[in-house]
Amino acid sequence: MALIEPRTLKGFRDYLPEQMIPRERLIETARRVYRSYGFLPIDTPALEYAEILTGKGGDESDKQLYRFQDHGGRDVALRFDLTVPLARFVAQYSNDLGLPFKRYHIASVWRGENTQRGRYREFMQCDFDTIGVEHIAADIEVGCVIHDLLRAIGFEEFRVRVNNRKLLTGVLEKLELAGKLVPVLRAIDKLDKLGADKVAEEIVREAQATPEQARAVLRFANLRESLPKDAGDDALIAALREHARGNERAEAGLAELATLVETSRKAGLPAERLQIDLSIARGLDYYTGTVFETVLGALPSIGSVCSGGRYDNLAQLYTKERLPGIGASLGLDRLLAAMEELGMVEKRRASASIFVPFFDAARLADYLTLCARLRKAGFGVEFFPEPKKLGAQLKYADRRGFKVALVLGEDEWKNGTCQVKDLAAQTARSVPQSALEHELALFRG
Amino acid sequence: MALIEPRTLKGFRDYLPEQMIPRERLIETARRVYRSYGFLPIDTPALEYAEILTGKGGDESDKQLYRFQDHGGRDVALRFDLTVPLARFVAQYSNDLGLPFKRYHIASVWRGENTQRGRYREFMQCDFDTIGVEHIAADIEVGCVIHDLLRAIGFEEFRVRVNNRKLLTGVLEKLELAGKLVPVLRAIDKLDKLGADKVAEEIVREAQATPEQARAVLRFANLRESLPKDAGDDALIAALREHARGNERAEAGLAELATLVETSRKAGLPAERLQIDLSIARGLDYYTGTVFETVLGALPSIGSVCSGGRYDNLAQLYTKERLPGIGASLGLDRLLAAMEELGMVEKRRASASIFVPFFDAARLADYLTLCARLRKAGFGVEFFPEPKKLGAQLKYADRRGFKVALVLGEDEWKNGTCQVKDLAAQTARSVPQSALEHELALFRG
Repeated sequence: MALIEPRTLKGFRDYLPEQMIPRERLIETARRVYRSYGFLPIDTPALEYAEILTGKGGDESDKQLYRFQDHGGRDVALRFDLTVPLARFVAQYSNDLGLPFKRYHIASVWRGENTQRGRYREFMQCDFDTIGVEHIAADIEVGCVIHDLLRAIGFEEFRVRVNNRKLLTGVLEKLELAGKLVPVLRAIDKLDKLGADKVAEEIVREAQATPEQARAVLRFANLRESLPKDAGDDALIAALREHARGNERAEAGLAELATLVETSRKAGLPAERLQIDLSIARGLDYYTGTVFETVLGALPSIGSVCSGGRYDNLAQLYTKERLPGIGASLGLDRLLAAMEELGMVEKRRASASIFVPFFDAARLADYLTLCARLRKAGFGVEFFPEPKKLGAQLKYADRRGFKVALVLGEDEWKNGTCQVKDLAAQTARSVPQSALEHELALFRG
Repeated sequence: MALIEPRTLKGFRDYLPEQMIPRERLIETARRVYRSYGFLPIDTPALEYAEILTGKGGDESDKQLYRFQDHGGRDVALRFDLTVPLARFVAQYSNDLGLPFKRYHIASVWRGENTQRGRYREFMQCDFDTIGVEHIAADIEVGCVIHDLLRAIGFEEFRVRVNNRKLLTGVLEKLELAGKLVPVLRAIDKLDKLGADKVAEEIVREAQATPEQARAVLRFANLRESLPKDAGDDALIAALREHARGNERAEAGLAELATLVETSRKAGLPAERLQIDLSIARGLDYYTGTVFETVLGALPSIGSVCSGGRYDNLAQLYTKERLPGIGASLGLDRLLAAMEELGMVEKRRASASIFVPFFDAARLADYLTLCARLRKAGFGVEFFPEPKKLGAQLKYADRRGFKVALVLGEDEWKNGTCQVKDLAAQTARSVPQSALEHELALFRG
């Protein structure tokens, strides 16, 4: 019989243990932080009726949908994000859920993207949102969650950049660019990458703006750079009052932005970790108020690792109920890539901390009894399931990154002792079996 | 614009928080127990080349596959289990993985099943396997994992039923039914449901056996019932020696079964929780040695909640390397249904334990500061993100199942105190804000 070649589809990945261990740890951290703020878990099906998913993310999204006919001839598709299913979900269960509804959702999504851009066709999203609340307190909380999340993951230096789409929109209205919102926002989003000149050209080209209008847009987006070097957000807010004056929308947006920054500061978020950035537009999204991006101090080039914002009406396609909300999404894959580059990922291929070789074949029940005792005391213990040569077993332990092995042979079983072997230092010492819980205290959990 | 009806596909489910909270807790318990034995996490794509998945689970599986053409015209399908992807995975990475390879995999699978049988088309599997080991120690460990898992979930009374396919096969060879293995095993599997008479009829009908052969099969499968009432597995093993005698395969199977049971006993697994059951065949599976099923003492009718067994050659379709293994799969949905029926699932719609209403609108930063302080101390704290009427906020907290609320109004902020409200008992007492960590110690985590 011919063998089938074992392979995966282009754009899809297997996760080996050394990739999956840090991935699981990151997801667990996100879950813990989301829960600590009262966000609740939900899940929705991978497959939905195609009509639920199409036309929500623009033509690009529709083209990328994995869409097909199921066994019953239904037109179905795999979800391409977690926001559209959330909208469908809150419309469907609005009576049961109660408002505000704070949910997190960590799950895979699928997009038939061009893999040449380094994109994957299956990836995990890690979203949290508060639905049904207009008050700025919900916006501030999102900033706090992002902050706590990055801290819990182990980052010290990062910046949550915040802006407000109302402020941006109002200022563009004042510049008589109201009808050109989308191309202007899209251009502004590229400031980091392209620089001011190219962005000005794009605004002229794509938004049919005059060079003067384009320059005015950039003066606004770069307002911070025109202030003294040590000017903080307070000075920036003061300067912004001038730009916003006379436009109701801009003034409202600035008031929200100012409250968000000032309250976050008073609540203990350090100024260097939450900062206004007028060049953040998130032009391709459906945001209507506060917008967030998050950049890592040590690796800004990787882009935003946690982004989000406020939207006015989440589920308008499915219900007449107006449901405002705010949320953000942790970029799991990007963050893991960054952590790997920054050496923050410990290379381990073991999930238990203690290794017990199977040395004396006649003592299987005794090994198992000892391992069970240690597990009960809270230790992770991997027992090698074959009485191979000790050297081969220790090599296995070493390759997997175990730090400690408990070697028990005929003599040890007779004496009630145990060789506690430090696999890194290649040292060992004899310990009474009865004292192991105490001796191994460092390796618990 | 016409609204789109928010609905899910037949056979697919949304998980609301009250369903998702116990679900996540169960998955976390499984992960913790698997890790404590050194099993490592992996993940594989939801979509695979169809040729990887077809022809592996029989015609029935092929018919149930969600199979379609992707954007590149590839013939692809959604995985229907986690065993076939594991086989493909170990064949693909055998050089990197090293043996033994102990993995767990917790992920969704899809089958276009007939939903009339109460089956779902999307469900989660929760598998663990040890690959590359022949030694019985790996089989014993699987029994220990199942035991620890059920205990960790909160079950006291359950039985891991164990049998050995070699013993069964050898005994059938002795009865000259070797060629009729599959229909006989399939019939034996129904003993619990149909009783001896119907099963005998099925063996005669489906395996073209004589009534004498059918009776002999049933005498074997019911051997325990012919022993004195208080006879344990030791007596059963002794009686089995007679049945196995003279057939090499049966004798080998019995020796494995006896070692498994006796060693597990010595290692501390209680006799009432691990027991030989000769009527377990798992006839539809590819098992070749030890087989496991697990029934709940309080709800045996729900069927096996954790099943598995040993197989000779996992990945023969993808590699010439012979890879034996053993593993089992936790029936997540079935177990959750059982736990709900047994009242083991706490009805909660909150993931934090402490609720803080937003009462004094002028004090937003103070509320946020206090909440941040408590989170830092390890408490889960949900802050209501709108300064609504206190009554409405407390009603929200009550519906969500919070037990304690911290009420802070103008007076409390002035005095540095806090009303700690017991939401169940409807009592409150005033506590200094500085003493909250101490006062709330019971609600940590």
